[in-house]
Amino acid sequence: MSSLQLPQSLERIKESLAKFSGVGEKSAMRMTLQLVNWPSEERKRFSDSLEELSHLKQCRECFVYSHNDLCTICADSKRVESKLICVVENVSDLLAIERCDQYRGIYHVLGGVLNPLLGIGPENLEIHSLINRVKKLHIENVILAINPSVEGDATCSYLNGLFEAPTVVERIGFGLPMGGSLEYVDAMTISKALENRRNF
Amino acid sequence: MSSLQLPQSLERIKESLAKFSGVGEKSAMRMTLQLVNWPSEERKRFSDSLEELSHLKQCRECFVYSHNDLCTICADSKRVESKLICVVENVSDLLAIERCDQYRGIYHVLGGVLNPLLGIGPENLEIHSLINRVKKLHIENVILAINPSVEGDATCSYLNGLFEAPTVVERIGFGLPMGGSLEYVDAMTISKALENRRNF
Repeated sequence: MSSLQLPQSLERIKESLAKFSGVGEKSAMRMTLQLVNWPSEERKRFSDSLEELSHLKQCRECFVYSHNDLCTICADSKRVESKLICVVENVSDLLAIERCDQYRGIYHVLGGVLNPLLGIGPENLEIHSLINRVKKLHIENVILAINPSVEGDATCSYLNGLFEAPTVVERIGFGLPMGGSLEYVDAMTISKALENRRNF
Repeated sequence: MSSLQLPQSLERIKESLAKFSGVGEKSAMRMTLQLVNWPSEERKRFSDSLEELSHLKQCRECFVYSHNDLCTICADSKRVESKLICVVENVSDLLAIERCDQYRGIYHVLGGVLNPLLGIGPENLEIHSLINRVKKLHIENVILAINPSVEGDATCSYLNGLFEAPTVVERIGFGLPMGGSLEYVDAMTISKALENRRNF
């Protein structure tokens, strides 16, 4: 019995979509068949934007993707004058913090965390530029918003050693998430929550 | 406070990705940031394949997407000679049936179901061509693999009325799915399963 052989363009798109984390073979095929039904102008807009990604600019200060040399946050004197800098691993983490609409300082995108096994040392991350910015902008408070992991913890220890008083280095708090329940949360989170208990 | 304004190409890609069913704003942004990190050749391959979709061919017999005028199933004389035709709403449903690697006949992609509210009548679906194929190929058995819904049920009734003996028209079975449990399945499925009980 011959099985169905789809046109190669469909197979190629499926393979591309399956590269996204969280998208399996089946979802990728479902998305591919949806793409076929898009109006061709919409598909054109999508493919044009994909090509533009090769010329994406980064903010020369904080390294977030930016339309101009300076991103809208680094260009905002109020945010720069807060003397607060929040260090994140990547742009996704920065966006997550911006979404909560509470933080008023500036950011610094490291571009990853230290990982000796993968050969990622301090020189591969935006650490030198962080030191320079902290000095130049007279930053008072460095907030490390680095995810908890062996490599994240090591990166935080390393960064903490780079700054001297009066610059204060802090890491974001860990504990029970809002809406979380002790019954369902993992043991590591509970022990962190106990460790990080506070007066109220 | 100025919030972050990302480059327009990123926003445009996010908007495109959010058009996929099951992809929300947040997932779309996560996928967009992944795309930035793809090697540019891979992105190029993806965008080129997207453009090719505008020239996608369909099998002139069953209307599945195909590299040639005739798909690999319609070109397989063994499958054509089975005198079995399976009618599906769309290509996704066809692929789902092919995946189970059991069906040995040919297919016919209707292109949807009858939906008077959306103005989709018999003339908007591949029904005329179905009648012609059933006659031309001396089909003995028309299997309606149409999903259960008000419109799907109406489409099946309509199709059933189009064929005369000796052509047998049947609809796929409905009931408890494999691995399913009476405890968790909806009431409609249970009543279908009771209705469709069989000797064993």
